[in-house]
Amino acid sequence: MAIVLTGDRPTGKLHLGHYAGSLKNRVKLQDEYKSYIMIADTQALSDNYENPEKIKISILEVVKDYLAVGIDPKKCTIFIQSLVPELAELTMYYMNMVTIARLGRNPTVKNEMQQKGMEESVPAGFFCYPVSQTADITAFKAEVIPVGEDQLPMIEQTNEIVRRFNHTYKKDVLVECEAMLSNVRRLVGIDGNAKASKSLNNAIFLDDDESVIKEKVDAMYTDPQHIKVSDPGHVEGNVVFEYLDAFYSDKQEVEDLKQQYIKGGLGDSVLKSMLFDCLKDMLKPIREKRRSLVESELLQMLMDLSKVARDVAKDTLYDVKEAIGINY
Amino acid sequence: MAIVLTGDRPTGKLHLGHYAGSLKNRVKLQDEYKSYIMIADTQALSDNYENPEKIKISILEVVKDYLAVGIDPKKCTIFIQSLVPELAELTMYYMNMVTIARLGRNPTVKNEMQQKGMEESVPAGFFCYPVSQTADITAFKAEVIPVGEDQLPMIEQTNEIVRRFNHTYKKDVLVECEAMLSNVRRLVGIDGNAKASKSLNNAIFLDDDESVIKEKVDAMYTDPQHIKVSDPGHVEGNVVFEYLDAFYSDKQEVEDLKQQYIKGGLGDSVLKSMLFDCLKDMLKPIREKRRSLVESELLQMLMDLSKVARDVAKDTLYDVKEAIGINY
Repeated sequence: MAIVLTGDRPTGKLHLGHYAGSLKNRVKLQDEYKSYIMIADTQALSDNYENPEKIKISILEVVKDYLAVGIDPKKCTIFIQSLVPELAELTMYYMNMVTIARLGRNPTVKNEMQQKGMEESVPAGFFCYPVSQTADITAFKAEVIPVGEDQLPMIEQTNEIVRRFNHTYKKDVLVECEAMLSNVRRLVGIDGNAKASKSLNNAIFLDDDESVIKEKVDAMYTDPQHIKVSDPGHVEGNVVFEYLDAFYSDKQEVEDLKQQYIKGGLGDSVLKSMLFDCLKDMLKPIREKRRSLVESELLQMLMDLSKVARDVAKDTLYDVKEAIGINY
Repeated sequence: MAIVLTGDRPTGKLHLGHYAGSLKNRVKLQDEYKSYIMIADTQALSDNYENPEKIKISILEVVKDYLAVGIDPKKCTIFIQSLVPELAELTMYYMNMVTIARLGRNPTVKNEMQQKGMEESVPAGFFCYPVSQTADITAFKAEVIPVGEDQLPMIEQTNEIVRRFNHTYKKDVLVECEAMLSNVRRLVGIDGNAKASKSLNNAIFLDDDESVIKEKVDAMYTDPQHIKVSDPGHVEGNVVFEYLDAFYSDKQEVEDLKQQYIKGGLGDSVLKSMLFDCLKDMLKPIREKRRSLVESELLQMLMDLSKVARDVAKDTLYDVKEAIGINY
């Protein structure tokens, strides 16, 4: 079985955007790949170092989300990054394999720096996180990394370090990885914002109560020019249709509704009620499973699986130090 | 007892420059301070990553030099940096406490980058080594760091990170350190080059045989205009006098000789023979002690002391993670 690594920065509960964009896919992958799922607390600190409390709290929330959607800890090694200190050691050795100039040219990091407004004062930890990510990927000899288009430069950076290391120490110790591009469109926020996020309060969370789901669906941005039911409406940028596309099982029915909406004669409330029913049914078992989970058991599981992950990372670190020639 | 941290990058055997500049001082300090001495293999890799063999070989050579000059492993915790992985973990957390811009302004690193000609292609590991150094210093709660003038910016950088960390996590976890400036002038190479080093082949090593010492003293740069014994000579830049200043015990005698040399009538060969006798007597017991050391015992000692150091670093890491709030 090929090895796949996925993960999340624990900075909040997961929402429908995560579900559509990656969680559903991971549930599928766990039967086809040896799966590692990393809860990247150390990485999350690199741009949340002033708010560590959020990270600590979010770890269990994220794990609950994982198990609730069907990720199976018997099939996936779910672990906490900071509990695998070998990743920090690997990072130190890989830092010699990349220049500051090269890191500064990484388009993904550049973009994120811009978004976070840290151009002039980027912390070294954030600037260098592609190196740390290389440690995460190579520690588990991951061959496949599911990513969005915007993350492709990270994979390229990882493989550059891998090749540089193997070449420098004349041994094929590290394994190159491949991006598995997702063909799922990024789910927009209920307000139409390109990004659904907790801070924008525009996301539907996996554990939202039915009343909250209803409220959020009702508040969804549709077409401001579609005032009367009989008016012709716009489908592009219409959040309700985006969500129906993502979650409604009968794709043909959605297509027919779109045609009707464009012509006029289909009201937002009908569509929203359809979407609400769909999300309600989809999220009910997830929410119930989520609420049935016992925190102490989850913690124990995380500790146990982090140890499993650590043993794998230890082996890689041993090989890396052996290749450099500093195993004493 | 206050805590002092010193150390060396293991990139070759130690020479008289190290002896005059720091080893002699450490022997004195070990009775007044709780002493940690770090063999900085990981740091040495940051600018020798293509030549790890040199580092591995040099570790034992450096330890032999330590013990030969009188550093006492019962008083000093001598340890290998890479055997204390907590230092890598601390580095990761401290990387969030400093910006890339700030690291780029570090005069010590800038200088070294220039000397090594790596301006355009500085490896991230080298660029960030002040952060790793902060980890080394704070892990042992070192309060006093013996350094040369050129290293003062490193101490400043360390204390900035310490203050930033304590302020960010609202807890006085890390301890600021103080530079202990040495008043010893840097020993020049036998060729008059400002730096004595193995690669320039202009240093007298602590384990040089008498015949080699004689050869090197005979080859010392003196005053090219002092041709006949009766010629007036120059004392400044005269390597023989620099070494007599550093190692000859009767300072008054050296002063008198200088006056005579300046007036004329004192030959280089007389001075060199004096210096040779002095160095021969000083280095004989060091060389003999050095050659009596058993490598397997040294290795065992290094492993044991590295464990001692590791336990201390573990405590600091625990406190650091506790302050951040990510001890699970």
